[in-house]
Amino acid sequence: MPQRSMREQIVEAAIEQFHERGFNGAGVKDITDAAGVPKGSLYNHFDSKELLAVEAMRRYGASRRLEELARGPGAPLERLRQHFEFLRDEAVGYDLRRGCLLGNFGAEVADHNEQIRAVVGAGFTRWRDTIANVLRQAQAEGTVRAESDADTMAGFVLGAWEGALIVTRSRRTDEPLQAFFAIVFDQLLH
Amino acid sequence: MPQRSMREQIVEAAIEQFHERGFNGAGVKDITDAAGVPKGSLYNHFDSKELLAVEAMRRYGASRRLEELARGPGAPLERLRQHFEFLRDEAVGYDLRRGCLLGNFGAEVADHNEQIRAVVGAGFTRWRDTIANVLRQAQAEGTVRAESDADTMAGFVLGAWEGALIVTRSRRTDEPLQAFFAIVFDQLLH
Repeated sequence: MPQRSMREQIVEAAIEQFHERGFNGAGVKDITDAAGVPKGSLYNHFDSKELLAVEAMRRYGASRRLEELARGPGAPLERLRQHFEFLRDEAVGYDLRRGCLLGNFGAEVADHNEQIRAVVGAGFTRWRDTIANVLRQAQAEGTVRAESDADTMAGFVLGAWEGALIVTRSRRTDEPLQAFFAIVFDQLLH
Repeated sequence: MPQRSMREQIVEAAIEQFHERGFNGAGVKDITDAAGVPKGSLYNHFDSKELLAVEAMRRYGASRRLEELARGPGAPLERLRQHFEFLRDEAVGYDLRRGCLLGNFGAEVADHNEQIRAVVGAGFTRWRDTIANVLRQAQAEGTVRAESDADTMAGFVLGAWEGALIVTRSRRTDEPLQAFFAIVFDQLLH
């Protein structure tokens, strides 16, 4: 079905372009050029660039392996480490560029586009909740201290990850990612 | 000296506009309108929007109170807490909007503008180094454990702050800022 395929191509290209250039920096023509489709075709599939960004975030979120984090095999703390190792390897694979699409949109357009802000915010909340559940499982089996509030810790770890990506990208060194693993897994969650 | 005054007005307006709209979202006309000066006058003072952004970051960095953090009165750990309380109160004063200008530029344009990336990266490095020195002072007086590597911890804390701001802004709740203080000052640095 070529109709569906063109939509797919546009969404895939949008994820790349938004990631690399930002919401305002990635023009409709950048996206359709990258998708190899005529410029006007974007609006046959999406009423606005905002709605395309929302779909890009949905697709990006689905690739974050939150299901494996929540329910995959392995001990809870090991799953959490593997989750962030997967994200780190992805960042390293892109030469420490790009950052996280949610964080990028959050930093660039959250204040000026309520539609995008709401989707970014919901994405962060879902992610935080998934991490918190894993921490509660780890607390139940005694691998994380029971006194720590799992929601607070999960929110902190998520923020620390998002910030580490931004500093890594700006300083062009993986030091902040290394510091994330050293502090979170060797000091905080022990 | 009206010449100097117009430059000041442009830089002040640029800090506001870049903060609120991002680098690509803040047009030259947005900035000159906010400054109350003719559009063409910007290029009498800055050769490019990039150079204006560099000057905006320099000015923004100078307002971060790094001098007080490094050398101000008070015990090292107390100075560190006051530093982040100052930044938190500023964020709360802006209704949790705006984030950090360095982090915003890092997330939006680091990959596509080497000039801006280098200034953001240097700003983060200087900030990290200042925090690390304070942590070493705290270690020397025994208020922070001596086993922790001060550079690693400082880089981690800086990233955690930047990420907390982005999640706070996207979720429109100060929970991530509260989590930052709870974890950093009650669990990590004790």
